[in-house]
Amino acid sequence: MLKLTVVSTPKTVQDQELWGKTAIAVDVLRATSTIVAAFEAGCSECYPANTLEEARAMRRTLGEGTLLGGERHGLPPDDFDLGNSPREYTKARLNGRLLVFVTTNGTLAIRRTGRSRHGLVASLANARAVALEAMRLRRDIVVICAGTQDRFSLEDTIGAGAIVDSLLKQGQKLALTDLATAASDLFTQHANKLPELLRRSVHGQTLIRLGFEADLARCAQLNVSEVVPVYYGTSIRPQLP
Amino acid sequence: MLKLTVVSTPKTVQDQELWGKTAIAVDVLRATSTIVAAFEAGCSECYPANTLEEARAMRRTLGEGTLLGGERHGLPPDDFDLGNSPREYTKARLNGRLLVFVTTNGTLAIRRTGRSRHGLVASLANARAVALEAMRLRRDIVVICAGTQDRFSLEDTIGAGAIVDSLLKQGQKLALTDLATAASDLFTQHANKLPELLRRSVHGQTLIRLGFEADLARCAQLNVSEVVPVYYGTSIRPQLP
Repeated sequence: MLKLTVVSTPKTVQDQELWGKTAIAVDVLRATSTIVAAFEAGCSECYPANTLEEARAMRRTLGEGTLLGGERHGLPPDDFDLGNSPREYTKARLNGRLLVFVTTNGTLAIRRTGRSRHGLVASLANARAVALEAMRLRRDIVVICAGTQDRFSLEDTIGAGAIVDSLLKQGQKLALTDLATAASDLFTQHANKLPELLRRSVHGQTLIRLGFEADLARCAQLNVSEVVPVYYGTSIRPQLP
Repeated sequence: MLKLTVVSTPKTVQDQELWGKTAIAVDVLRATSTIVAAFEAGCSECYPANTLEEARAMRRTLGEGTLLGGERHGLPPDDFDLGNSPREYTKARLNGRLLVFVTTNGTLAIRRTGRSRHGLVASLANARAVALEAMRLRRDIVVICAGTQDRFSLEDTIGAGAIVDSLLKQGQKLALTDLATAASDLFTQHANKLPELLRRSVHGQTLIRLGFEADLARCAQLNVSEVVPVYYGTSIRPQLP
């Protein structure tokens, strides 16, 4: 029996709750969906940054050819190569490249996984692949939802629910926290209408207003990638199937 | 259109988010269910205390005949008249009496409502009655779930969902936060099997181990009371229909 905890934001989990465990960062709209897209497009390594300044410094250190991607208030700063839309992360742009990536909520969740034994990055696209890897690692699991502005977000909770669902379908016995139970129930309720659910979320509504409605359909695609991004304390590298 | 916010614990809401609004405290297992039971049994006024010491001091001040109720780790301290089980709060014991009440999670949520314009106390038993009163007050609504040990709890989220459900059924237009949407969806999913849901919750499991399984069925009763307990900054008094 593994214990599976879901927390609604990175701030609601203490370091000691992560020690020795497998931690999974989820930011469905859109950071972790975009990171999965980047690795699917052949990106070799992704450095998550907390601030724009840190991101720019990382690019200078990593040198020529390093791409800078991400957002503030949903949009990429002027000197960035890429925004936070998974649809921009194509093979033509990403193949073999290093990426420095900064977003408002997502990178914080990813960095928090660095306090655990194994840090993984999940979206709806690779939820099953990450669940299988977490099962193989045989440690208690903490799913860290990025949340929106330090609050519960519907889309990340559904992403957590997709992971629970894959584990249960594999026959994995789980002791679920209440938020994990709720995430699992919500996922089951909405599994066949995920695009609609993302449109109902507060952050989904914001993205529609900003002109990113097509991203919602993309981020709602379930189990379409086998990539398992692993966070090694400084950078994320894909563990390919 | 009213804005309806649900927060998973009292600590996740700032004072300024409550100013001028209607705040509703929910602790289904078991504090707010017990308070509704106390008023149904004729209790005249209930003083929520944060600590055992404060509760004892309140009883001394309020004088002879004041009852002391509540729990630490689920059980009443030795010198208390009553625990935190709604089944103990009978007319024979409560009618016309003052009550000082202290619980681990619930009283903190109730006291937080004191920062709002109108503070109400809800359980599944009086969810619809409280929703109707909140609608009449025509202010934005913040439902403050007590949570369990500063974390999301399934049963309080369902309680919040019951309030949202009653408002929507009255035709009230609502702008929902993501947690309010999730609460509403979970309530809809489980409305006809609430006792089972309470048994699945982590706190429900704890109460079953402590011998309080009968309380779960009692706390799962939906819309059986018309009492609207109002928190006036120091004490709670019932607004009778």
